[in-house]
Amino acid sequence: MKYSKLFGKTIKEIPKDEVSINSQLLIKAGFIRKEVAGVYNFLPLGLRVLNKISNIIREEMNNSGAQELLLVSLQNKANWEKTDRWNNFDALFKVKSRYDFEYALGPTHEEVLVPLANEFVNSYRDLPLKLYQIQNKFRDEARSKAGLLRGREFLMKDLYSFHESEEDLMKYYEQMKKVYKKTFLRLGLSAIETVASGGTFSDFSHEYQVICESGEDEIIYCSGGDYAQNTEIAKVKEGKECDLGHGPLKKVKTIEVGNIFPLKDKFSKAFGLTFKDKNGKEKHAIMGCYGIGISRAMGTIAEVHNDEKGIIWPKSVAPFDCHLLVLGNARDKADKIYKELIDASVDALYDDREDVSAGQKFSDADLIGIPARLVVSEKTPDGKIEYKERNKDKAEILDLDKIVKKLQSA
Amino acid sequence: MKYSKLFGKTIKEIPKDEVSINSQLLIKAGFIRKEVAGVYNFLPLGLRVLNKISNIIREEMNNSGAQELLLVSLQNKANWEKTDRWNNFDALFKVKSRYDFEYALGPTHEEVLVPLANEFVNSYRDLPLKLYQIQNKFRDEARSKAGLLRGREFLMKDLYSFHESEEDLMKYYEQMKKVYKKTFLRLGLSAIETVASGGTFSDFSHEYQVICESGEDEIIYCSGGDYAQNTEIAKVKEGKECDLGHGPLKKVKTIEVGNIFPLKDKFSKAFGLTFKDKNGKEKHAIMGCYGIGISRAMGTIAEVHNDEKGIIWPKSVAPFDCHLLVLGNARDKADKIYKELIDASVDALYDDREDVSAGQKFSDADLIGIPARLVVSEKTPDGKIEYKERNKDKAEILDLDKIVKKLQSA
Repeated sequence: MKYSKLFGKTIKEIPKDEVSINSQLLIKAGFIRKEVAGVYNFLPLGLRVLNKISNIIREEMNNSGAQELLLVSLQNKANWEKTDRWNNFDALFKVKSRYDFEYALGPTHEEVLVPLANEFVNSYRDLPLKLYQIQNKFRDEARSKAGLLRGREFLMKDLYSFHESEEDLMKYYEQMKKVYKKTFLRLGLSAIETVASGGTFSDFSHEYQVICESGEDEIIYCSGGDYAQNTEIAKVKEGKECDLGHGPLKKVKTIEVGNIFPLKDKFSKAFGLTFKDKNGKEKHAIMGCYGIGISRAMGTIAEVHNDEKGIIWPKSVAPFDCHLLVLGNARDKADKIYKELIDASVDALYDDREDVSAGQKFSDADLIGIPARLVVSEKTPDGKIEYKERNKDKAEILDLDKIVKKLQSA
Repeated sequence: MKYSKLFGKTIKEIPKDEVSINSQLLIKAGFIRKEVAGVYNFLPLGLRVLNKISNIIREEMNNSGAQELLLVSLQNKANWEKTDRWNNFDALFKVKSRYDFEYALGPTHEEVLVPLANEFVNSYRDLPLKLYQIQNKFRDEARSKAGLLRGREFLMKDLYSFHESEEDLMKYYEQMKKVYKKTFLRLGLSAIETVASGGTFSDFSHEYQVICESGEDEIIYCSGGDYAQNTEIAKVKEGKECDLGHGPLKKVKTIEVGNIFPLKDKFSKAFGLTFKDKNGKEKHAIMGCYGIGISRAMGTIAEVHNDEKGIIWPKSVAPFDCHLLVLGNARDKADKIYKELIDASVDALYDDREDVSAGQKFSDADLIGIPARLVVSEKTPDGKIEYKERNKDKAEILDLDKIVKKLQSA
């Protein structure tokens, strides 16, 4: 993609009402634009990152044995009344039709999926069943100053599992802990698996928390990895020595990027979701749910991977494989290299602007944060390019072949 | 994918309130489920078709030089007031927050995209600009009995182009006519390019109409391809001889699967979207818009490609490349073939059910409508399979290799 043609360039001044680091960086670099508080449009660069995150999550969910489907936003009010959440789910947006009926504007999807599963689950042979979707959620949040970290409209992966027994649920639950760890690692996020409240459903749940000063959550954890609890439920104090000798427990601010939750039979009972077990006895299906905030993950990545110059995207979610800059009178040489990159299936953002200084191009590249930068100038020897990684200080002069191999393996 | 594990099996009885052919077929075959009138959930089979349609459209839009982005559903009320549509867009859903403000729930996206484009368009050098998205739309429609043909929530591709002059708009408009024809052909739809009203924007627009008895539109057209007008504006009568000697004009019911529309400067003026032309003069950008109903296209394909046994998907949008059936005691043989298909990157739906008769498997395969059916039974010679195309009567016994090649080229 030629940067001269890209919709959504960098800007110098960010709107005064943007107070979060993630929204400031993402707006300045041309990834997102605010529509109203807590609601953001994704420009082409931003959509690329969102899709890369979604695809990594999709791969991991498919590998875990789950099937993807796509549920609705305009949800049946009657089902929200059955679960007693129509009047008790604080952040629920209600949509009135001019034809005298009302919808719930989906903040979550138990009220849609459980009645749907009920149609197809009859016997223990139909279980376990794992279904997920990647879809917009709507929540009438009180606070919405944190950019992509807390949206009124946001992209989420939500997975729901249905089991014969709590034992089988917990087997999948443990599997999903591993899937979640791997997923966040692939996204470039060090997420701490944290024990949290189970709300009205269960004794516990698990949250995936990323340490970040601007996070809204707080956890107490051991850096040895054996203890982490949300301070909402933690009974120990910061500074207490870890039982396993890893030193004192720390209290930190965090962002919750995902959670897993044993729902047990609350929704199965509300919708009469039963199955015949091996002995012909009708039982309620046992459920779990597993969420990842996709747009929130994007905001979190920007929030934790940056320096004073801009964003530093992990390779796995970067909008492009590399950022190619042409300086001075080297247009023909750079055009040729751009074409070779395309032919090698390397996805390059090519800063081909003619009316912009070298300094501006460098600072834009740092701000946008694509992990590999290639520079072509009059001084570059034929067949060679200046190569620099975003998170390193030093550039090298390398053969194009070698760079292509590096980028293809990324 | 093993059919025994697939979420969303065929059913015998369809809900009494489903009166459209497309929703009856798609529900019976396990592609969709109604949430409320005009709002459908997509089961795994349905999502596969929806994604295939989206990806074909995405390819064609990218090839036409457009950039993809993703706009919001919760839209700024102030912008709807600027265009005077807050109180004049009949089908607009309004969403009230508990915090004393209101949103428009996006039925279309001029009110979002034009202010956004305004930030980045300054000079003639920034034009032409072509932006599109694939996203859910919400409309408070009066009628919603036509399944996927008229939804209150539906998936749409909407593209908006911005130009220096009407001349440049019309150049792209003519290009998009060709892109649309090619796109619908790839989707397996014979869409007739039809002149229609330009509403308040322009003298004309063009609709892409598929002949179908259950369509809500009506056109008068010449089968020779030189004349087609929506009856809303047509001044000639059915039966009139075509000027080019192709015989009498026909009047038919149709489904509108797409439209292209010169918006001119209506929205540019509302939002002050101007640019400096080559002479330094400020001018309003000239716009066009280009829509395709993606879920409607899926409904239309089901509506026109079917027989008394079920759906007949065009290869390009079929949920799987082939449907593999195992009959009798041939499980081991069929398992092996399923594995070989996977290894050859052929996407197969494998009906591995053990408690289901051969007759049921055949009728389910016909209903689901995957274009190629492979049958393995005790009688099948080693290395061979019974191959039948959904739209042909006769089956053949073929080598697996040959079938794989057929399916890979599809």
